[in-house]
Amino acid sequence: MSTSPEAKPAIILVNPQLGENIGTAARAMGNFGLNELRIVKPRDGWPSERARKAASGADGIIDAASIFESVEDAIADLHQVYATTARPRDMIKTVFTPEQAASEIRRRATAGQKSGILFGRERWGLENDEIALSDAVVMAPVDPRFASLNIAQAVLLIGYEWYKPDAQTLGMATEELPATGETGLAMPHTRPATKTELLRFFEHLESELDQSGFFKSPDMRPTMVRSLRNMLQRAQMTEQEVRTWRGVVASLVRAHMRSKAGRRNPQVEET
Amino acid sequence: MSTSPEAKPAIILVNPQLGENIGTAARAMGNFGLNELRIVKPRDGWPSERARKAASGADGIIDAASIFESVEDAIADLHQVYATTARPRDMIKTVFTPEQAASEIRRRATAGQKSGILFGRERWGLENDEIALSDAVVMAPVDPRFASLNIAQAVLLIGYEWYKPDAQTLGMATEELPATGETGLAMPHTRPATKTELLRFFEHLESELDQSGFFKSPDMRPTMVRSLRNMLQRAQMTEQEVRTWRGVVASLVRAHMRSKAGRRNPQVEET
Repeated sequence: MSTSPEAKPAIILVNPQLGENIGTAARAMGNFGLNELRIVKPRDGWPSERARKAASGADGIIDAASIFESVEDAIADLHQVYATTARPRDMIKTVFTPEQAASEIRRRATAGQKSGILFGRERWGLENDEIALSDAVVMAPVDPRFASLNIAQAVLLIGYEWYKPDAQTLGMATEELPATGETGLAMPHTRPATKTELLRFFEHLESELDQSGFFKSPDMRPTMVRSLRNMLQRAQMTEQEVRTWRGVVASLVRAHMRSKAGRRNPQVEET
Repeated sequence: MSTSPEAKPAIILVNPQLGENIGTAARAMGNFGLNELRIVKPRDGWPSERARKAASGADGIIDAASIFESVEDAIADLHQVYATTARPRDMIKTVFTPEQAASEIRRRATAGQKSGILFGRERWGLENDEIALSDAVVMAPVDPRFASLNIAQAVLLIGYEWYKPDAQTLGMATEELPATGETGLAMPHTRPATKTELLRFFEHLESELDQSGFFKSPDMRPTMVRSLRNMLQRAQMTEQEVRTWRGVVASLVRAHMRSKAGRRNPQVEET
């Protein structure tokens, strides 16, 4: 996990207009363990009750935010600064995707370098002079016909990419998340069925089907059995589920007897 | 680019409470070229001026949205359904990250299969019965100490991952396409069951189990049904297999009648 102070990039909001947007940006940060918020000249002043309220629980990030008079001040201690933009500017500048920027931030952090990411105003983003202070531009890949990310969403995408490798290292298994492999099945409170348990269930089902006349002809039986077993294998049943399904089969077989007075087609009844 | 209708997943909002959140979800969709919005019972009615306004330009998506009475109706024509959840539920279900789900959606689209993604209510997300209708759960990797994504942000992360390979194809990024070789099922001579076919099978099985007395008490029924459905969903049945399994259930139920002279515990017979 990223624990040293330089490991986590600073999120720097430049002249945000609405307190709400500062709050939702803090909330987005909280999802990915980012906690260093810097704000350059918030238009509506500071502290902001609206920001606290919109942070929905991430008010720790709001309370610890630092306020700066200029972008220069806000980035003074950083080694690497990224400027987020919605569209390419007429500037010779490296352009990173959020994924590439996140991997660069991590790489530099291991070398003791601290990074920060600039996010512009709601209306017109960052000014060219501000971008010029940055080492690289970050642009999220969006449909050019409808590029419309708000500040919190831009923070979200970069935080998401930054946090992803941590989540992967942890295998997404934390105190909250179940241990799963890649695309694994969450299996709380039980274990996968052993092949013996599964086979016994197969045999139970197939013997009931033999007796019920399901297999129209002996020739077809092997193919049908294979297909039933294939489908059941794919479900990756747990030990508990195998027991449940044995109960299902037993219950269906008993169906007729339980139904009082031969509810099902009594005229077919043979006595 | 993905142009065929099945290529793009449907975004399905279940009982959204506020029109604003429908609008911001549509706006998030617009960034990634997603345009099929389905809404199950929006709490505040439809059409919604608030939704249109919050969509900030994505009102084409709002105007084209389809409204449904139930999740079952909303997913009826889909081959694959994903349920987004903030935290693990007590269910045996495949868990995907947004990245894995996006790659699975793309892989299936090339095979002509259409996917949809369920997003829950603002307050408490999706209900367990709704998750049980899904093939897999999608959870974004977030800090478990502060997991707080709103609907639009959850839509944003999945849309982002879905769109990323297109952006890469367009040369927005230099990295290679993500590997898409998931656990693909080969399905010769058949196709995945639609959700309608699957639901009818569920209902058939459950009604037989009702009659056979499988559900010991009405209290236990919902949990048992959910667990049966979850297991059957995981098997990713084909249309052919659903028909076979309906035959299995029908045959087991008829078991007693076929067995001449009440082979099974004749003493229990009630006449």
